[in-house]
Formats: sequence, C-alpha cells, structure tokens
Amino acid sequence: MTATDPIANLAALIRCPSVTPAEGGALTALEALLGPLGFQLDRIRSTTPGTPDIDNLYARHGTQGPHLMFAGHTDVVPPGDTDLWRFPPFSAEIADGMMHGRGAVDMKGGIACFVAAIARLFARGVRLPGSVSLLITGDEEGPAINGTPKLLDWAVARGEHWDACLVGEPTNPDVLGDMIKIGRRGSLSGIVTVTGVQGHAAYPHLADNPVRGILALARALMDPPLDAGTQDFQPTNLEVTSIDVGNPATNVIPASATARFNVRFNDIWTADTLKAELTRRLDEAARDEALRPGRAPVRYSMTFAERPSHVFLTRNDRLISTLSAAVQGVTGRTPQLSTTGGTSDARFIKDHCPVVEFGLVGQTMHMVDERVALADLETLTQIYERFVEDWFADAAA
Amino acid sequence: MTATDPIANLAALIRCPSVTPAEGGALTALEALLGPLGFQLDRIRSTTPGTPDIDNLYARHGTQGPHLMFAGHTDVVPPGDTDLWRFPPFSAEIADGMMHGRGAVDMKGGIACFVAAIARLFARGVRLPGSVSLLITGDEEGPAINGTPKLLDWAVARGEHWDACLVGEPTNPDVLGDMIKIGRRGSLSGIVTVTGVQGHAAYPHLADNPVRGILALARALMDPPLDAGTQDFQPTNLEVTSIDVGNPATNVIPASATARFNVRFNDIWTADTLKAELTRRLDEAARDEALRPGRAPVRYSMTFAERPSHVFLTRNDRLISTLSAAVQGVTGRTPQLSTTGGTSDARFIKDHCPVVEFGLVGQTMHMVDERVALADLETLTQIYERFVEDWFADAAA
Ligand SMILES: [Zn+2]
Ligand SMILES: [Zn+2]
Repeated sequence: MTATDPIANLAALIRCPSVTPAEGGALTALEALLGPLGFQLDRIRSTTPGTPDIDNLYARHGTQGPHLMFAGHTDVVPPGDTDLWRFPPFSAEIADGMMHGRGAVDMKGGIACFVAAIARLFARGVRLPGSVSLLITGDEEGPAINGTPKLLDWAVARGEHWDACLVGEPTNPDVLGDMIKIGRRGSLSGIVTVTGVQGHAAYPHLADNPVRGILALARALMDPPLDAGTQDFQPTNLEVTSIDVGNPATNVIPASATARFNVRFNDIWTADTLKAELTRRLDEAARDEALRPGRAPVRYSMTFAERPSHVFLTRNDRLISTLSAAVQGVTGRTPQLSTTGGTSDARFIKDHCPVVEFGLVGQTMHMVDERVALADLETLTQIYERFVEDWFADAAA
Repeated sequence: MTATDPIANLAALIRCPSVTPAEGGALTALEALLGPLGFQLDRIRSTTPGTPDIDNLYARHGTQGPHLMFAGHTDVVPPGDTDLWRFPPFSAEIADGMMHGRGAVDMKGGIACFVAAIARLFARGVRLPGSVSLLITGDEEGPAINGTPKLLDWAVARGEHWDACLVGEPTNPDVLGDMIKIGRRGSLSGIVTVTGVQGHAAYPHLADNPVRGILALARALMDPPLDAGTQDFQPTNLEVTSIDVGNPATNVIPASATARFNVRFNDIWTADTLKAELTRRLDEAARDEALRPGRAPVRYSMTFAERPSHVFLTRNDRLISTLSAAVQGVTGRTPQLSTTGGTSDARFIKDHCPVVEFGLVGQTMHMVDERVALADLETLTQIYERFVEDWFADAAA
C-alpha cells in the first residue's frame, strides 16, 4: 500500500516550496498521496480582491456519517536567509535522525503522519464506518482570508457536515505527548490615536502635548489586569505593542501620538464585551486627565482590527478523551489539556463541530533549521491511527 | 548723514537672501551702513568640520571704555513655500504701513533700528564717551556652532571687553514696549531607551515588553513637576516630545522603546543638577517597576544632547532700568521684565557681560508674510537712541 511511511510523505511535501501564498506543488503532492487511497479530491481556488489567490484542498473518503475532519495547512513561513540553514530549507535532508526543512513540524509533518495513519488503517483492511476528510489550506500563515474560512464556506454550501475535527498543528512544547489544545484564547488588536496641539517646547501653555495623553491611555489599557483567568484559560493579557510619535525635533511638541495594542482574551470575554471595556477604560482615563492641574480631557480615537479571533473552548469530552487515550496509549504520557498560545485555524472550525489540536513538537517552528525527529513522525502516525480507529469505534457504538 | 532711516536700512538687509548658512550679502550691506559711520569692521569666517562655513561681523566704534555691545543676527529661517507669501519674501515690499519680508522682525529690523539710532546720535553731534560695537552672526537660526560663541572667542582673544550688551531679538509679544527679556531659561534635551525582550504577543511571559518600561519612565520624567518656579522664572517644564517603538506587527512584543524629551529649566537648576535629578527619577522608577506583579526592573539608558543651553538671569539693575526707562519714555508703556520663551544667543554673551534683550514685536517671526509696522521701526529706533545715550551718560557719571 502507498503512503504508509510518514517520512516519505513528509519528504515529498517539504520539497514543494509552498511559502504563503504559493501552492508550490504541495497540494498536488498531497493529492498524489490521497488519490490512490480512494479520496475524492476538490481543489478550491479562493479569490478576494486585494489579496493573492490561494489554492486549497478538500479530500473526503466515504459518503456516510459519522464524519471526522483532519484540518491543516501546506503553506509555510519564509525560510529567511537560507545561508543560515544547515541544509537547503526545501531539500528534506535527513541527518542525526532528523528530517530538516521548512514546514517539517509546522505542519507538513502533521499532514504526512495523518495520511500515513489512514494509509495504514486501510492497509490493515480496516473499513471506517463513516467518512474521513482532510481540509487543507494554503493560507494559514498568511492573512487566512482565502484559506480555512472560505474552504469551510465552500464545503458547507455543498452540504458537508462534520462531527469532530482534529487539527494537526504542532501542540507539544517539548516532547511528543505533552499537550493537546482544547481551546484557544481570542485575539483583538487596535490602535489608539491621541490628538494634541503642536507647538514650541518653550511655550507649552500654547500647545497640548499628546504624549501625556497617550501615556495615560496606554496605562489604562494595561492596568489593572482585565481578569485573573478562568478554570480553562490563562488571564486575559493586553500588550501595548507600539507607541509612535515620530517627532525628530526636540524643541517641538508634537500634534499626535499613536499606541497599538493586542489583547489575548479568555472565555470571560467576547470581542464585543472586550471592546466595550477598553472603550470604557479610555473614556475614564481621558476624563481623569482633566482632573490633573493644567490638563484638559484627552481627545482620542480608537479603532479595532477588522477581524478579531474569537475565543473557543471544546467541551466535547468524548473527543478529548479519545485523543488523550490515544496519546497516552502510544507515548505513555498523559497530555495536558491546554488553551495556551496563539490562535489557529481551529477558531474558524469550532463553529462547525467540536475541534481539538494535536501534532508534533513545536520548538523549531518558524525558525532556521526547522526539523523533526524521524521517531516523532512514527509515533505521531501511530497516535493518529489509534485515534481515528477509536473515534469511529466510539461513534458507531 | 547716512543710515538714519531704519526703513531704508531694513529694506537693504531684507533684499539679501541670507537664509542660514548663506551670508547672502547681508553682512556686506550692513558694512556699507556702518563703514561711513566710522566703525572698524572685521569679517570673521568660522569653520568647523562637518558644518557649513559661516560669515560673522564685528564692528566697533571707539577705542576706550565703557563699551556697549549690540548683538544680533542677519541670517533668517527659510521662507518656505514662497507662493504662500503676499509679496516675494526678499523684496522688502511696503503695503498697509508694513514692510514685508523674511527677517523683518527676526531680526534684521532690530539691526536696522540700532544702526539708525547710532547714525542719528552721530548726526546730532553726540560724541559717545566710550565704544559701541555690533556683534552680528550669520548662524543664530542654525546650530550656532560657527556663530556667536566663535565670534566671542575671537573678540576676547584680541582683547575685547564689554560692560553691557543689548540683544535686538523681537521680545514683544503684542505691542512694542510690552516686554524686555532679562534672562532665559536653560534648555536640555535627552533620549531614554528602554531595552526589553522581543517575543510573541501570545507568550508575554517569555518576553519583556519595553513599552511598560517607557511608560513608567516617561511619566517619572514629567511628574511631579520639577519645581514651582522662582521669583524671576516660570516653573521648569519637561515635555516628552516623542515616544517611538516602530513595531508594525501587532502580534509581536517589541525589543526596545525610545522617549525623547526637552526641559526648559530655571535658575534653581544647572544642566548638571538637572541631569542628576532626571537620572535619580529614572533609577527610582526603574526600580519601582520591579515592585509590580510579574515585572522586573526596567533596563534603560539615557543620553543628553551635547550642548545644553544654560540658564541666565541678568542682575545688573542699572542696565535694566536704563532700558526700561527708554522704553517707557518713548512708548509710555512699562515693559514687563521677563525670562519666558525660548533660548537666544544671549546665553553665550552672559558669560562676558550683563545682557538684556529688546526688539520688535515677534508675532510674525518664522511665519509666512513676516512683516513689521513702519511705525514700530521708527519707535524702536528712538528707544535704542535714547537707551544708548542714557547708558553712556550713566556709565560716565
Ligand atoms: Zn501552523
Ligand atoms: Zn532671531
């Protein structure tokens, strides 16, 4: 049977230079693995004015429910200065028991293992009592506009329905088996601009320095903490990521000042309640400035980035316990059920079915010399194989 | 007698396009006025590697003391977009009782009036019992490196000594006679850089956001006020004129943040005691940050601009009262004795003799359509004439 070897699968994928937004041959290579296994293949090209066209792939095996989805991406972040790499980043070179290459862990490796897991099930003659699909985007590392959301829309429009989803992102901080992600914090970005009155530094009473205002508002955004965390999530955290005035003249009081911020928020909040709280804080701080001697209320505006990432938490105990048991059975480790870290495309999928995430060890992702232990590829393939078999067994029961 | 008409004198000066660092013919035009009055003329070209050469003029009448200096500059700031001007900025056009042109009030007008005042004294047959000199730089609106400081050094080296100085900068906010400047605040600029640890916004515990540090330090610089002012001076004032991070990525915690500031300080401080106080404040604020939950001491560096402007206050009551009386006698107004506003080249002269400043109305200085009332030129000429005569009468008494 073909495609049972995750190492060979991964080598084929790494050799495609699929830096976002380029397809780079990666989806075609994946089709070449899935076609012979009996998957029905649909390439969906998504187009949005002002953004590059993106190729995506939806591959389904079976026509009945229950229906399990595996989600992932073949696009990769740029390799950066290739001279810094031990091996060329798209050569899939093996050395010291590791396969090297951009995407090795994030996340061509996860895809390679899942394909191998399915191939092994079929090779063993297992007939899945339902359907398994791969929803693979080429726009996860980019703006994601033409990726998973459009692919989901396309699939739903043609009547697809899923009962559960496994995302193959690298979830383990150190060792395979460390961590399953069962949710993600939301992410909201915004910009605050304070308008003052430009003037000469020697005549501050004729000017209104917006730096004072931006200091007050930036502090109000960060302090006090928005919450202390929940049972499932870390505390919500806001970072002011930039403050900019751009005034090179030391004797000039500037006209305006800008602060940029990003909030990672837990399930106490929605994007809307969070926006309301931040607006309330700024209004209060803007008014409070007027209570200081010689100060007026701060004149400010705040705008939020258009598409916040919504928080989610998967409460499907059966999905989580099936995956946990598979990890534990293969690795002997009890994976932590975590909601830490950044966002993933799971934030889009959670609107369609319960979703969990488990993949390789993330340590080298996005870095020079991204690489994966060959042993981890084999272990992850076994975990995925067991998980798929057990999930269908549970679903049929 | 020549040069008795300040309007003609000013027209000759305005027609020289002497935008810093260009001499533009302005010093030559001034020499043409002073030579026939019997002044000994010395053109001093100052050179400093890395800066443009500057022409300066020292003109002395008489060889004995007492010795009165008039100080000023023939260089002007650029006119900007000349299409915005009612008349070409170097044409000295007269309309509505005003002479228009760059430098009309800052400060070719002051020079024109002083020359006319001396010319009128001489025309009246007054023999001054001492010497009067004009110390005129072409680098007041520029970095001043090759201007007044070098000119003073040159004059001192050849044995010049002065008993008092009148600077002809435009000192009146609204009406001629409003204000004499008897001192100036000092000016000190600096840059604070906070170093953090770059990281991903989703993993703040692995990063150290320098924005938090720069907020704390910027606030410590500005609050509480450095002092409440003195009998002679406004309160010392610090403005943070820019804060810059330059981080465009909302999901990245930046590595460093910078704040620029400028202090206008009164005679409670010297540049050195002020530097020490600001350093103490930052050290304290940097340590205090470590008392906040989850925060470490702020790592920062502070550098000061190389050449602070030192504060000065003229305590020579006779010089001040002679000038005040001349202003009052001609205008009927009692001028305010002020130390407000920006710095001037008086900050260099105060190390050599008592110095006061009085000139035209500054409202249009550095602006489009800079202009001076012809009536003001006549009034200022009369004030200068009376001041010079009275000062020598007092000095001889
Ligand atoms: Zn990824
Ligand atoms: Zn000036």
